[in-house]
Amino acid sequence: MKLDKDLNILIVGLGLIGGSYAMGLHKKGYNVAAIDVNENSIKYALENNIIDKGSAKIDDSLISSADLVVFALYPHVFLDWIKNNQHLFKSGAVITDVTGVKSCIVYEIQNTLRSDLEFIAAHPMAGKEVYGIENADDTIFKEANYIVVPTDTNTFSAIEMCKAIGETLGFARISSLPPKAHDEMIGFVSQLTHCIAICLMTCSKSEHLVDYTGDSFRDLTRIARINENMWSELFLLNKDALLAQMKTFITEFNGFYEILENEDIEKMKEKMIKSTARRALFDK
Amino acid sequence: MKLDKDLNILIVGLGLIGGSYAMGLHKKGYNVAAIDVNENSIKYALENNIIDKGSAKIDDSLISSADLVVFALYPHVFLDWIKNNQHLFKSGAVITDVTGVKSCIVYEIQNTLRSDLEFIAAHPMAGKEVYGIENADDTIFKEANYIVVPTDTNTFSAIEMCKAIGETLGFARISSLPPKAHDEMIGFVSQLTHCIAICLMTCSKSEHLVDYTGDSFRDLTRIARINENMWSELFLLNKDALLAQMKTFITEFNGFYEILENEDIEKMKEKMIKSTARRALFDK
Repeated sequence: MKLDKDLNILIVGLGLIGGSYAMGLHKKGYNVAAIDVNENSIKYALENNIIDKGSAKIDDSLISSADLVVFALYPHVFLDWIKNNQHLFKSGAVITDVTGVKSCIVYEIQNTLRSDLEFIAAHPMAGKEVYGIENADDTIFKEANYIVVPTDTNTFSAIEMCKAIGETLGFARISSLPPKAHDEMIGFVSQLTHCIAICLMTCSKSEHLVDYTGDSFRDLTRIARINENMWSELFLLNKDALLAQMKTFITEFNGFYEILENEDIEKMKEKMIKSTARRALFDK
Repeated sequence: MKLDKDLNILIVGLGLIGGSYAMGLHKKGYNVAAIDVNENSIKYALENNIIDKGSAKIDDSLISSADLVVFALYPHVFLDWIKNNQHLFKSGAVITDVTGVKSCIVYEIQNTLRSDLEFIAAHPMAGKEVYGIENADDTIFKEANYIVVPTDTNTFSAIEMCKAIGETLGFARISSLPPKAHDEMIGFVSQLTHCIAICLMTCSKSEHLVDYTGDSFRDLTRIARINENMWSELFLLNKDALLAQMKTFITEFNGFYEILENEDIEKMKEKMIKSTARRALFDK
């Protein structure tokens, strides 16, 4: 199956990411329907021409006519939804998602799913500090990474179709990683950084610091504004990988503490030279 | 003394900050001279109309005609400069600086200085990841904080003049803190964040991660590109305050590690709700 304009695409979950997917795909001329438990979200998306059709209920005809289904739900809700409603899918439908952790969900979905359906996981590494369809914005994909997360059982055509979604939405970089490697990477570049930002905000009473915060502190704490329901779930689902990354960071940070305590200026400079060289690679 | 246009202002040290001061003050119509050991920096500043006069030597007439002298040197170079050359200052001249740490330098300068001169410390919390007069840019002050750091011995008129420099340069917020409180605050909002950024870049081989870094990791590591000579000196000069802030952060981060290890989702959400509320204050 190719990502053609005559396909029926169904988005399940019209939050910030689901809504931004719908917006981007609809703008490019695809048929986009959506299901969300929140009636107002569906109403908003219809009124603002983000989707063609929508329902706040488990709508048999929307589901059974979909060729491609994108799930943008919390992980445990996603799994329940599949268990309860997968009998409604059209045979041969391709199913993908936007979940931020993979090992804990991908295999369970693939093992649960009817054998005439295929689940191919994806992770759009995009977001905002605000939520809901009202903040949907398909330009958030422009500078972002899109990762296809195939397992050994996925077919070539489903993987290619999943990549095509990322291309259509205009992601800057599209790549592919198996679930375990994905979760290791995400534990480091995304979850560890969120833990640090949270701890920076909670470790010290900061109300009186508002007047003094320069760019550095603002940059390091921007992501401390966090949806506690979503992120606590994501952290727990990736617990082992995240704990390992936190431990690596703590060890390094304690080492830096010692360097300063010992006034070992040469070692300190070495660290700074290394961090500068590595960070410079990101700005190329 | 007031910050009038007929004053002669001398900038000592034409790096990024000294150069940006010169640029901003000169644009506003002040007489700006500069001294820098690097002949090319003086040449560049003259050719680009950043200063009126300049010298790469200890120029007696430039120094003795200055009413206001701004030092934009590394702390230990600043102190040596004062010891060696203060006999050249005009009686009644006001001296200020841009040094990022204060307790370790302010009292020593004040105690060293001739009694007919006054040193009033300031900290412009602005910067870039690039250096030198070639990158001078007075717009970096627009969103930034300017902190006057008076001691008990400073006069009202010098404090007001020092504030006026910040106003003239167009800083967004101007405030005042005594040296110890300043160093505590800077240990937290600036130095601790730089330590974290450095450790994020050095704790894990990141070359292969370049393709996957989203905004979060980029934000948290932007300041990991760091001038190792300047920052290692600043860290050592503020060692006690910085170690205290690092310890506070380590304790909080270890606590978060435990929360995740114990899967205590309620405590985790509490932390996230707190970090979100505190960070939201910055965006008002």
